[in-house]
Amino acid sequence: MYYIGIDLGGTNIKAGLVDEKGNILHKDSVKTLAHRHYSEIIADMAGLVLKILKETNTDISKVYSIGIGSPGTCDNKNGILVYANNINFENVPMREEMQKHIKLPVFIENDANCAALGEYSMLDKSIEHMIFITLGTGIGGGIIIDKKIYTGFNGAAGEVGHILLEIDGKKCTCGRNGCWEVYGSVTGLIEMTKEFMKNNPDSVFAKSCTLDEVSGRTAFDAARTGDSDAKNIVDKWIFYVSEGLVNMINLFQPEVLLIGGAISGEGDYILNPIKKHIEKSIYTRGVNQTKVEIAKMGNDAGLIGAAYLGK
Amino acid sequence: MYYIGIDLGGTNIKAGLVDEKGNILHKDSVKTLAHRHYSEIIADMAGLVLKILKETNTDISKVYSIGIGSPGTCDNKNGILVYANNINFENVPMREEMQKHIKLPVFIENDANCAALGEYSMLDKSIEHMIFITLGTGIGGGIIIDKKIYTGFNGAAGEVGHILLEIDGKKCTCGRNGCWEVYGSVTGLIEMTKEFMKNNPDSVFAKSCTLDEVSGRTAFDAARTGDSDAKNIVDKWIFYVSEGLVNMINLFQPEVLLIGGAISGEGDYILNPIKKHIEKSIYTRGVNQTKVEIAKMGNDAGLIGAAYLGK
Repeated sequence: MYYIGIDLGGTNIKAGLVDEKGNILHKDSVKTLAHRHYSEIIADMAGLVLKILKETNTDISKVYSIGIGSPGTCDNKNGILVYANNINFENVPMREEMQKHIKLPVFIENDANCAALGEYSMLDKSIEHMIFITLGTGIGGGIIIDKKIYTGFNGAAGEVGHILLEIDGKKCTCGRNGCWEVYGSVTGLIEMTKEFMKNNPDSVFAKSCTLDEVSGRTAFDAARTGDSDAKNIVDKWIFYVSEGLVNMINLFQPEVLLIGGAISGEGDYILNPIKKHIEKSIYTRGVNQTKVEIAKMGNDAGLIGAAYLGK
Repeated sequence: MYYIGIDLGGTNIKAGLVDEKGNILHKDSVKTLAHRHYSEIIADMAGLVLKILKETNTDISKVYSIGIGSPGTCDNKNGILVYANNINFENVPMREEMQKHIKLPVFIENDANCAALGEYSMLDKSIEHMIFITLGTGIGGGIIIDKKIYTGFNGAAGEVGHILLEIDGKKCTCGRNGCWEVYGSVTGLIEMTKEFMKNNPDSVFAKSCTLDEVSGRTAFDAARTGDSDAKNIVDKWIFYVSEGLVNMINLFQPEVLLIGGAISGEGDYILNPIKKHIEKSIYTRGVNQTKVEIAKMGNDAGLIGAAYLGK
């Protein structure tokens, strides 16, 4: 038996056929063309699923369910996407609309939560609580409690990027000031890098590229070659990331905390100082401690997690 | 049938006989005398329980269980108090020791978690997730998820006072800098009040009492009479409290968030501005929102919650 996972993004819709062990047997994608009415977008999602079933010669009776990972706030109980600004969906009856095309159980969940579930599905089955934090344009993530995604009473819990790092700090896109994601996201790292370069135009580091060329890797690459200015920026950013992670541990004490996002490809270079910082900053000593690790599944986590919503 | 609840504090041990509806039928207390060996303290706890049973003519066969609310980190699975610095307990086998005296099931849990459970027990039974925050010397609290106290994998979760308000901020007793409890506790309010008075010795507010007389009520009382300096302090403190509560809602989205501690006796005078602040600062709109209320049960919450550990 199989599961269908769909990763609905602002640009592309990806879908995949996933087996019981979390292997993606086949995947494919189409453009979202997000300006369209939801009925057209969901029709394309259904078309993509049917195409995948056909290409893999999979009879629909062999599929348990369709799981949809979507941006925004999802109400899985009622099968409704409550709100997602980047695809302009508001109170969209996703389940009902999808079932007009394909008669299978349909589950929907926030995409970051799906990624958390995807990562979780690959861990030891004895683990009950897990936090997944993804460092990217923002800070996203998902919270697994008692082996399930925790979404609060209204589907909107787990906005891990939107807790304070600095009261009255820099403006966040959410409207609040000083959220963790303003500082600890890759966007925050890029801002810090650019700010340094603007303020220190004569430094070797500032001369290494133009402001337009700055990415999340710029400071890391220079720091690895021994540039002390770049090293300071990386250290400061890791401090921001780590302090937010300490918050998560003090609140949730999960067995495992996973760090994902492209930047986590830096591996031990970020993981080791993060672990060191956490060790000296957490509240509770004398008990078993949360294992902090780099997430393993990359871009496929969301798709596999979506597939497993039906599990 | 009845439950025994014990509230083990640094100064006093309180115990009570609690019925199915959460009524305390009889309660009594003894001094903790915390310098003693744990076996003596637990013998006194057991003696207090037996005294209460005798005074109420309650046969032990009518009692389900004994629940102990203790400071520090508890491992209820193994019946061990892992660590509590104010009573100097470390890896104390509470269950085993108590059962030497009384043959009943024994449960142990952190005292703030017990208070959360006590408050929760009085809410509508349909409520699944609740946060209880108590503003006092520090900021404590408890997290109810899926109708149970959430304690993480190691019993140490829910340190709600030890998440950041200000990175690199004021030193917290936990060793970290900038924790919410440094700013949003009553201790934080007293500090702010004293600081203002020291810096503005000629103000009417500073002259209203000596520094030694300052309490958590000082600024509130003066603000209510129209003193604008005191009002500014109260506003700032409520801002600190509210920002931490926004963190809790963005992460947990509980049906209900309760604010307790003696200061919550200020009632609507603190509740209304807190609610207003939360409304404009939370991340997710367009979904049902957390109800923010003043906790109702006062000092008995911990005892009742402890009793209900066995429920």
